Order: sequence, then structure tokens, then C-alpha cells
Amino acid sequence: MNVKPILTNKQLKPYLLKARYGVEKESQRVTKAGDLVATDYPKTLGNRSFHPYIQTDFAETQMELVTPITDSITELFDWLAAIHDTAYRSMDSEEMLWPMSMPPALPEVEENIVIAKLDNFEDVLYRRFLAMSYGRRKQMVSGIHFNFEFDDEMVRKMFELQDEYKNYHQFNSEVYLKVTRNYLHYRWFATYFFAASPLSGPHYFNGHERPEEPVRSIRNSKYGYQNHDDVKVTYRSVEEYVADIQQMVEEGKLSEEKEFYAPVRLRGGKSVADLANKPVRYIELRNIDLDPYQPYGISKEEVEFFHIFMLFLLWTDEKAEADEWVFQGDQLNELVSLESPLSQTACYDEAQKLLAEIRSFVAQTGLNVSTEILDHLEEMLEDPAKTLAGRIYLASKETSQKELAVQQGLSYYRKAWQAPYQLAGFTDMELSTQIFLFDAIQKGLQVEVLDRQDQFLKLTAQDHTEYVKNGNMTSKDTYITPLMMENKTVTKKLLQRAGFKVPQGKEFTDKKAAYSSYEEFRDKGIVVKPKSTNYGLGITVFKDGTNEKDYIKAIDTAFAEDSSVLVEKFLAGTEYRFFVVGDQVKAVLLRVPANVSGDGKHSIKELVDRKNDDPLRGENHRTPLEKIHLGQSEQFVLQEQGYQIDSIPNKGETIYLRDNSNVSTGGDSIDMTDAFTDDYKQIAVEVAQTLGAAICGIDMIITDINLPASSSDVYGIIEANFNPMMHMHCYPFEGKGRRLTMDILKLLYPDFIQRKDR
Amino acid sequence: MNVKPILTNKQLKPYLLKARYGVEKESQRVTKAGDLVATDYPKTLGNRSFHPYIQTDFAETQMELVTPITDSITELFDWLAAIHDTAYRSMDSEEMLWPMSMPPALPEVEENIVIAKLDNFEDVLYRRFLAMSYGRRKQMVSGIHFNFEFDDEMVRKMFELQDEYKNYHQFNSEVYLKVTRNYLHYRWFATYFFAASPLSGPHYFNGHERPEEPVRSIRNSKYGYQNHDDVKVTYRSVEEYVADIQQMVEEGKLSEEKEFYAPVRLRGGKSVADLANKPVRYIELRNIDLDPYQPYGISKEEVEFFHIFMLFLLWTDEKAEADEWVFQGDQLNELVSLESPLSQTACYDEAQKLLAEIRSFVAQTGLNVSTEILDHLEEMLEDPAKTLAGRIYLASKETSQKELAVQQGLSYYRKAWQAPYQLAGFTDMELSTQIFLFDAIQKGLQVEVLDRQDQFLKLTAQDHTEYVKNGNMTSKDTYITPLMMENKTVTKKLLQRAGFKVPQGKEFTDKKAAYSSYEEFRDKGIVVKPKSTNYGLGITVFKDGTNEKDYIKAIDTAFAEDSSVLVEKFLAGTEYRFFVVGDQVKAVLLRVPANVSGDGKHSIKELVDRKNDDPLRGENHRTPLEKIHLGQSEQFVLQEQGYQIDSIPNKGETIYLRDNSNVSTGGDSIDMTDAFTDDYKQIAVEVAQTLGAAICGIDMIITDINLPASSSDVYGIIEANFNPMMHMHCYPFEGKGRRLTMDILKLLYPDFIQRKDR
Repeated sequence: MNVKPILTNKQLKPYLLKARYGVEKESQRVTKAGDLVATDYPKTLGNRSFHPYIQTDFAETQMELVTPITDSITELFDWLAAIHDTAYRSMDSEEMLWPMSMPPALPEVEENIVIAKLDNFEDVLYRRFLAMSYGRRKQMVSGIHFNFEFDDEMVRKMFELQDEYKNYHQFNSEVYLKVTRNYLHYRWFATYFFAASPLSGPHYFNGHERPEEPVRSIRNSKYGYQNHDDVKVTYRSVEEYVADIQQMVEEGKLSEEKEFYAPVRLRGGKSVADLANKPVRYIELRNIDLDPYQPYGISKEEVEFFHIFMLFLLWTDEKAEADEWVFQGDQLNELVSLESPLSQTACYDEAQKLLAEIRSFVAQTGLNVSTEILDHLEEMLEDPAKTLAGRIYLASKETSQKELAVQQGLSYYRKAWQAPYQLAGFTDMELSTQIFLFDAIQKGLQVEVLDRQDQFLKLTAQDHTEYVKNGNMTSKDTYITPLMMENKTVTKKLLQRAGFKVPQGKEFTDKKAAYSSYEEFRDKGIVVKPKSTNYGLGITVFKDGTNEKDYIKAIDTAFAEDSSVLVEKFLAGTEYRFFVVGDQVKAVLLRVPANVSGDGKHSIKELVDRKNDDPLRGENHRTPLEKIHLGQSEQFVLQEQGYQIDSIPNKGETIYLRDNSNVSTGGDSIDMTDAFTDDYKQIAVEVAQTLGAAICGIDMIITDINLPASSSDVYGIIEANFNPMMHMHCYPFEGKGRRLTMDILKLLYPDFIQRKDR
Repeated sequence: MNVKPILTNKQLKPYLLKARYGVEKESQRVTKAGDLVATDYPKTLGNRSFHPYIQTDFAETQMELVTPITDSITELFDWLAAIHDTAYRSMDSEEMLWPMSMPPALPEVEENIVIAKLDNFEDVLYRRFLAMSYGRRKQMVSGIHFNFEFDDEMVRKMFELQDEYKNYHQFNSEVYLKVTRNYLHYRWFATYFFAASPLSGPHYFNGHERPEEPVRSIRNSKYGYQNHDDVKVTYRSVEEYVADIQQMVEEGKLSEEKEFYAPVRLRGGKSVADLANKPVRYIELRNIDLDPYQPYGISKEEVEFFHIFMLFLLWTDEKAEADEWVFQGDQLNELVSLESPLSQTACYDEAQKLLAEIRSFVAQTGLNVSTEILDHLEEMLEDPAKTLAGRIYLASKETSQKELAVQQGLSYYRKAWQAPYQLAGFTDMELSTQIFLFDAIQKGLQVEVLDRQDQFLKLTAQDHTEYVKNGNMTSKDTYITPLMMENKTVTKKLLQRAGFKVPQGKEFTDKKAAYSSYEEFRDKGIVVKPKSTNYGLGITVFKDGTNEKDYIKAIDTAFAEDSSVLVEKFLAGTEYRFFVVGDQVKAVLLRVPANVSGDGKHSIKELVDRKNDDPLRGENHRTPLEKIHLGQSEQFVLQEQGYQIDSIPNKGETIYLRDNSNVSTGGDSIDMTDAFTDDYKQIAVEVAQTLGAAICGIDMIITDINLPASSSDVYGIIEANFNPMMHMHCYPFEGKGRRLTMDILKLLYPDFIQRKDR
């Protein structure tokens, strides 16, 4: 296949740097001291029989973290980050992940390496067979499998631009086969730069034959985890590749297809046999060591390198017959793997040549990649100490490989626990959605972010798909229910008729009619407000009646905001938010207006700054609480109380900075779920049911929560919210957090989510 | 009960003019020539066994129109208007309603008056009994029953302000009893002004004893429809009232309670017996004649008078023992009823006195009513020719009573048919909702307008309640589905994966990323648009690729409107709107941009004015089409074609005034439902199902509707609309109207709505 004129065709340019990526990463669970743990797969995680993101490899301690297929490197790392965050915070809080390919100290007695306790007995049997065939110690090595798929449109365009192949599937297979053979031939090049297993840990070899350490990669050498020598497979054609593997299985040289541990696998359907009638969809690079300097075991730079390298391998001609070409590669890779990490490689000249060819390829195709990546390779080529293996070896010499692994591991552990409400990779999304995503990933729902800015998710468990926006808008509610809640007049009418206590009132669409109703309201406590209240604008409260002049002013103020104005009875008491999911109140929250407590020393401004230092406080619903601002509204509220921002309040004095208690304007959230008796909760549930709502927030004014709800005038329903915030309940300022996101997941997947949440 | 100090208490003032009202109005169906029809109750109407608004009285020709209970006179007349509109347009288009109490010419043979063909055999038996007992002819008289309920809070306030009664129910009953007795005593006063049955029609008396016509009210005299003389009931107390009626029934003097035809009934529960343990809720005035000068048989002024009169009757002291007081009233009313309509009444002095007392009552309570009503009564008192009976008699003398009735009837008939898409009483609501309301009223669903401005309805049939906004937002869709449709990126992703053809494209949230994707789009037809397109702002179309400069300009233009921009493949073809309800496409519409056809004589401006004269064209979705404006956009489009608004296009030339085809900017709507084969409709249904939508509008671009949908690139899905307009399908500019509103009603009430819609 003469591919160079095709790849340089300008029609191809938009597609060259597009691809699909996926990572599977194994890691051993260890204590914070770096010892292999004795605990089982975390119970908080969903069923690992079909968990799409967090599985178990050979051993019970060996987690396998799997990203979905992504369309960009950014997205790949978002998922790596999210899955790692979820894994860390689903494990025992004293456990972390070992950041290296070579395992930590193994038990002296091999049988003490615990095989993964999987539900499926066949899976356990397979692992027992591997233990017998290869020994348990070798199975403890971890690595990264990198899945790479060229942009489909690129391959199709290439097909259009050639005339050697008439059949698209055949052409597509040949593209991947060529890359595979070239990768097998040139993989020593990647080994030189990125190999990261120079030293073994205690009891890894345990008396077996071992290399003279340090090397570049124990894992990539014959001392790593490889098939027995009698396993030979050709890469001449897909048909022969499939036939060879199947024959190995028939002859008993492999127990099953998946025991074929080549550095690259061709992937199409679920099994190797599928490749006979399905096109190759992607290739799986299996020889990548974990980079302990990277929180997720691999750097973006390395992924970018592999992308360029794949394109180059497609570009560059093979210089020998297929089997011979691959055989040469195996030899070279063994050679480079077993070199000392600080020595110049024997393939130095060849590497120089290859680098120059890659640069030329980049130039000829006009590939828009940063030259830094190639410059860095060059640097590492010149100075082996700068290669990954070199750096690890040098650092290990200073202390020990274990010390290095523990230090790195701890730094990733700390990062994962630093802001436990956030989900790394998705911190640009609203906090409620981040928490929701965490729970969905933890329980093993397949999650897709359909639109990040719009907080729009797709969830799938087996064949059951649900769509969720903002974490609380689902198929469990009908179209009309939120519209009913949005309209306060409608809400009130329906609740009142159903027998709930709501503030009595009138709606006016005409100023004069409102004015002339003064007599009706003069002696009553009333609230005058625009029908659609936004941010509390245009609201006037008269707690004990008013005079006509002030009443008219209030009407005018409200009409300035809306063409409809409500005059409602004022209800005295405290407002609580009842969060209803299904037929239960899952949380009750008291919201307190933004405030500071005086200490007799600091000014209000200083106290606000100090309160804002809390990492729980941020901006724009990305943290459980919002920072308190000192804007016009706050200064006005202070003035009304006779304060300035530089006033120094007395010790113990609480100064409020807002009239409204919204968390979004810096208010505090206080969980009160357990403080309420069932009668109030029952009212909230029935209010939700009256409006037909499955998920909603009911705002209730209560004069005294110690009185039974049946008492006269003890409560009033103020509002029903169809998009109630969840994060303020999950991580309140005070009191117990309530995992509403998990409750909603359970509402959506009652059968799927069985385990108790944390 | 010393009521005067109570009613003058300023606390009562806000409530005096509040009340609840309801009207039941009987009318004979007649031909446009004024003859009784021979047709059955209209089949288009829902089942009259429980139709809340349109029922049948004694005869098959005698419609009974029933308003719901309303909180204001305005609302009462809105409902009267809507129910009349619905009744008129549900009858045979050659039928109308006879606007007078006295029936049109009756058949010579009494048996030819057809008793209502009701489903319930007991109802038919009762009518047969009435026919035997009173004769069919008398049953043909029609009238208005006016239901009146004091504001509940007013009665409660009155109760608080007195100390005679300890029990609220008892007090409440006494209020209504006093008003009832006084009404029975003073009803002659209303008869004088508003009686409207001076003359009988052919075969009404048919040889029976008859008064010397003209009189003021045949219907209110002994020649009208009254109980036999042996029926006597006391109004001393509710208990005795109930006992008397029950005794009459026991003794066989009444066949059942409802045969008690008093001019006033006390109403509480469903039966009279309920009054024994339930409070009186309202009173029913039954002696009001139809006013032929009013489209709905009664004027607002008359209703306002009755409200004041009810208050006055509560205010004024009774001057004799209960039975005596009522008996005097019966005598006086008989006297006034049988007076000649042009003669001064024998009760002139008493009427003068009463008027003065009413004026004094209004003054003392500070009642905020216009003096015009009382001035008009005074005028009528001075000049009997100005009373209703006087006017009818005088007009009948000029031609005939029949001629008067036909003229008036026809004018109401014409009004009902003038804009058949509108629903009188609710013309301020969006047209789709007006049509929806019409259909719901027609089929006999109980309808409540929860919020007029918000187009929010509540429907009930038996125990099944549904809420509907905009006529198309219902419980049949989930909360998440419209949110999916609102987000174009999500919609496209899901449709594309499900295998539908959608314009391929990319979303950008970053200008630079968009710029650098130029290569990918340079040679393609593309559309650059803000993610949330409103009114077509920020959209650029390149039908055959573009240069980089124009591409960048288009990206900038789109980013000026939104922070997310889509670059999509341009699809050539014609856009059609497929309206899906449930699993069927119920309508397909082609929308043509605002346009005029030249005649070689008139300027574009004149042609637009002429096109706008069509009553189908209006403003703001209150008519099936919108007026064409000649604003900046239109003038720009003309300029692009080399025209000015005063250019005179050639004969037969079509000049387009907009680029977009929206009906809301003056476009034409053309029904194409029958032009499409099922395959395209099936696609629209499956698109809706993919998004989980029960009601939606699918916009499809089709290159050639004669090619099968399976042809390559013949269609593309542009958008799915979660709030699709319905009225443009119901009343298109061209082609057959599609009653989508009825389809949605059927979706909501599949069992209830059985009959075929018109």
C-alpha cells in the first residue's frame, strides 16, 4: 500500500489528528504505608460483574480502571480523573493506589496473593488456571492498555483516494495490520522513552530466574508477564491471525483467546473470532508501563506521542516480510528492555534515524503538533537519565522504589480527598451534577455526558436508558408538573383546594384593581410580590398591615418587575426546604442568610474574608456553599442595622448580610432532616403528590417545629421547586450530609442499585 | 336579625361586591327561519348524560347551557360566550338558538313536541310525567336560572360581628332565607323591569285559558309554567322548607323534589334533603325571562342589578310573618306580570319607594356601584315603554314577535360563525388554546382556566384530571423530553445514533477551535449558527463551501448570539413540519415565507395591505395567520431582490418578503398531510419515539417528496419542537384543516372521547 501520497493529500489533513481513545489501567490497592491491602473490592462500588469503569484484574487487590471510548485526549483525561476520584473515594479511606507497574512487596507465601473473588465461577477458574500456569506473582504486575482508533472518516477518505483495495473492510484491516506490524517492530522505541519498571519489589521473583537490575522494563522483557514460547501468531493477514489464535486454543497452548498476551491486539467485536467477519475497529497497545509521576499512570504527552507514532507507523514502509519484521521487533524490544536505564541504548542510531523520519513525516503532512514532544524525545535519547526508567531508578536510589511509590501515591490520594464533593475531570459542571456523576460511576451505570454546559447526562444500566439534566430533571416527572410549579398561581390554587395551607392572596394584572383592594389588606400582614419572583426583586413585606401610601408603593414596585402581581398573607415563622424523592422526604434544610459571627476584634470585612476562606465556599454552584459578597445589597442590609463593612461586631454577635436566606447569596445550609417528625414530612410528600411531582423541593414556613403539623396555622406552603439544588443537602454547612443524588439514582434504577450508599 | 349595623361596618366593605355566580339558560333550537328544528341533539357534542355545559331540557330541541360557578361577572360572561360559541358551532350549521322565553310556533299536534331522547330511562320517564301533568306546550317555555352565592368571607365576617346566632351554619341559612323571602315578596320589582314574555306564539295556548295579551310576563304569571295550586311550601325555616317539600312528594303532589318550581330555590347539596344537614350554599333565581336583545339572554347590567338587589334584600327588614310575606309577593308578582307592558304599574309608588331605599342602602354601605344602573331603573319606571317587555312588545308590533326573534337570533348566529377559529370569551388567550378549549367544552370535559395569561388549563372527566398548558404540554410527555429537544446538540446526538439522518456538524464553545476547523468545512455546504437559535439571528448559510474570511465572519456572527456555535452540513430541500401525536403523524405542513402575488397594478405595499385584510391574519397568535409587516427585515429582503415597497410586481410574480418561512412572521401555511406517503410519517413518529415524545413537531428537510424516504440523502431532521403551534394546522392558509387539539384530547382521554370530531 503506497500510503504516502494519500496521507499528504490535503483532504486528509482535517482528520489526521482526530481519533478515539480509551485506557484500561491496572493498579494495586495498598495501605498508605505502601503495603498490599487485605481488604475486598470496595462494597460501595456497584457489581463488578458488569461495572463499566472499575473492575478487578487477577487479584482481589488489583483494580482495573477503564475509561469509556473518548473522542479527544482532553475527554480521555477527564474520564481518567473522574474514575480515579471515584475509585479513591470508594475505597477504604486508609487505602490508596500503588502508582507503579511493578507490584509492592508480595507475600512470602504465593497462595496469600488472593485471586479476585468474582461472582462468575468461570472467571475465577480462569484466574486459577493463570495462577498455575504463570504463577501468581507475575500476575501482580500492572500496566496500561491503550486503545486507539483512527478517525473513521479519515480511513474512508484514504480508501477513496487509493485504488489498490476494492473492499473497504479489507482496506481498513490492512491499515490496522500495517500499524500493528510496525508497532511490533518499533515498540522498542516507546520502551526506551516510556518504560517504567526498572526494579522489582520484594518477593516478585522469589528465587526464579531474574534480570540484572536495574533494567529499562522488567514488565516488557521476558521476565515480565508473557505467553509461553510455544505461542506464535502471525500478523500477515487478519484471517491468519484469527486462525493462529484459534489453533493455539485448540492445541491447548492457550486456555482461551484472551490468554494471548501480545503487546498489541487487533480489536473488532467481542471475541477474536469476530474479526473474521467484522472489520478491525481499533488496536489495543498493551505494553505501556505505569508512569508513577502521573496521577493516572500516563501523561497527555505520552498519549499525544502514541497518536503521532500510530500515524507514522501507518506512513512508514515495512522493510521485511510480516513475520520476520515482527520477529526483529521482538528481539529489539527485548534488548532495549533489559538495558540499564542510565546507559545509552544500543539502538541509538536507529532511534536517531526514526526521530528524523517522524519529523519529516510531520513536516510533509503539515501535522499541527507541538514540536516540544519530539524535542523532548530527542532530549531523552541524548540523556538516558531523563527517560522515565532513568528517572525512577535515580529517585529509587536516593531512597527506595517503595518510598518513591508511596510518596507519589500519597500525593494522588490527597488530591482525591482534598475536595471530596468535587469530581475531578468534571469540575466545570455544576456541583450537583458532579456528585450525581460520582454516584453513577461508583455504582457502575454507564454514563455519557451529552452536553457539559447543559448538565445533560445519559445513563444506561443493561438495557435501561435514562436521561438526566441538572441531576434532578428526569423521566420520572411529567412535562406538565414543572410548569405547574413554575406558575405560582396555579400551584397555590391546586394546593389550597387539596386542603393544604397556603398564603391566601390575590393576583392582579391591573394596577388600579390592586390599588382598590387596599381595604381588603390594610389590617393584615401581607407580602406584595411579582408573580414570577426572581432573586427576590420587587418584594415588599408588611408584617402587620400598612397604610395606603406604602401599599400603593409596594404594588408599583412589584409591577415594575412583572405584569402580574400577587398580594399574599404574610406568614410568620422559619422557612425550611423539604426535598422529596418519590414518596419520601430525603432531606430537610434550614437556610440561614449570609452572616458572620463577631469576635470583638475583626471587622465585618475581615470576618467575611475569613469565612470565605473555607474551601466549601466558591462561586457559581461549583462548591457546596457560595462566597459571601460585600456588594450593594449586603452593604444596604448592614446600613439598616447601623453597620459599615469596617465595623467590628461584638464577640458572639451574629451579623446578617442579606435579607434572603438563599445559599446562592452566601447563606449557610443546616441539615434538619432528623429534627422533624413525620407529620411535616408527610405533608411535603402529599404536596408533591398533589402536583404529580417525583422530585421536588417544597418550601414550608413553620412557626414552631415542636408543634404537631395538625396545629392551627403552624405551617404554610410557600413554593414548590422543580429544579431544587441538591449539593447544599449533600454537603451542608452544618449537620449530616444527605446523598440525594443517590436517592435519585435509586428512583431511576430501583433494581440496579441495591447496595447501601456510604 | 339586625343586619344594618353589620352591613355598614367598614370591615365588610371589601366583600360586599364579591360573590359567585352561575347561569343555566334554556333555548329552543330553531332553523334560520325561526321554526322549531326536527333534528336530534348534535352528535358532535359529548355525552349529554353528564355534559357539564350543554344539556337538554324537556324537549329534544331545548338546549340547556350551563356555566360553571364563577367568581366574577366578567368570568360569568366569558363562559356564557364560550358555551354559546361552542353550542352554535356544534349544531347543524343551518340551526340557531331562539332568543326568547316564549317558544316559537309549536306543532299543532302536541305529541309532535319531541321529548328529550336521553340515555337514562328515568330521565325520560320524568319528562313523560311532566308532559302528562302540565302538557308539553308549557314545557317549551325557556328561561334563565341565576345562581347567586354571597362571598363566604363576607358571611363569616357578618357572623363574627353579630351575637344573636351562636351557630355559623344556622346564621348562614338565615341570611339566605331572609333574602329568599324578601325576593319572593319583591320579585314583582324585577318582573316590572326585566320580564320579557309579553306575547305567546302560535299553538302555545292552543285553546287553553289564556291572558289578554300583551302582558309583562306570561312566563311569570299563572299562564306560565307553575306548580299546581295544591303545592305549598313555607320559608319560615330551612327545616320546615325541607319537610314541606318532602311531604308534597310523599303525598304525590310532586313527583319528585325537582318538580318544585318555585321562583327561588335554596341550594346546598345535590338534593333538597341535604339542606337538613348541610348549610345553604347559594340561591337559585328561576324567574328570569330571556332578554332577546342580549346574545346570552341576560345583560351584565341585569346581573349587576341582581347582585345589588340581593344585598338590599339582605339589608331590608321583612314587614310580615314569613308565609304572609311570601304570599303578598306572589299576589303582587301576578298583578305586575299580567299588566300591559306599556301601562304604568299599579305598584308605581311602592317601586319608587323601593328605589329610594336601594339608593339609601348603597349610600350607607358606601357600595362602589355605578349610579347608571339605578338611574336606568328609574327611567324604566317612569316610561314603561323602556322596560324589556315594553320594548319587545313595541318591536313585535312593528313586524312580529317571530320577526324580532329571528333577527336577533340571526345576529347572534352570525357572530358565532364570523371567526369560527376563535372562542368568544377567551379571545385574549392563544389561538391554539382557544381551539383546544372549544373542543374540550364541546366534548363535555370539565374545564377550568387556572391561569389565562399562562394558557394553563385543568380538565376533568369523571375522576380523571389532566393539566394542559399551551394546548400541547401535558402529562403524556416527561420532564426530560422537552429538555432534550431544547438542546440541539443532545437531540442531534441521539437521533444520529438511532440511525436518522441529521445534518452532520460540530459544536464549538471556543472561537479559535472553530476558526481552525475551517479546512474541514471549506468545500462543503454548511450552516453556521448559534446553538440556541432564536428568531434566526446569527445564522449564515454557505450552500457550496466558502473562503476562510467569510467562514470566520460567520463564526463571529454566530458567537455574538451564543457561547456555543454549531457548524452543520447544509441540507438542500424544502422544510416540512410533521406534527406527531402519540404514534401517529396527524398533520404535515409546508410553511412559505411571507409573500405577495403581483397583479401588474398594485405596489407591494398595497398587495401586503390587501393580503392583511384577510380576517385569518392578526397579531400575536390570536388568529390562524399573522399579518405581514413591512419592517426593516422585509425591506432588506426586498432590496436584495431589487424591489422597494412601492415597486409594482408583474402579474403572476411572487415576491417574498422574508427569508424564513415562519407563520409568525407572516408566512403562509399549506396543509400537505395527504401529499405524503407513510414512510416519511413513519420516520417522524420514530424520531418522536427516540426522544420519548408523545406530542411534538418534527421539522424535516426533504429534497423530493416523491422519492421514497429510504432514498439516499433525501431527508434530514432539522429540529424537534416541544411546543409546536397547533392553530396553523387547524386553520391553514391552504388545504384541509387538521384538528390537532382534538387529537390531543383523545390522547388524554382515549375512553372518554369516542365520537368522531367534525
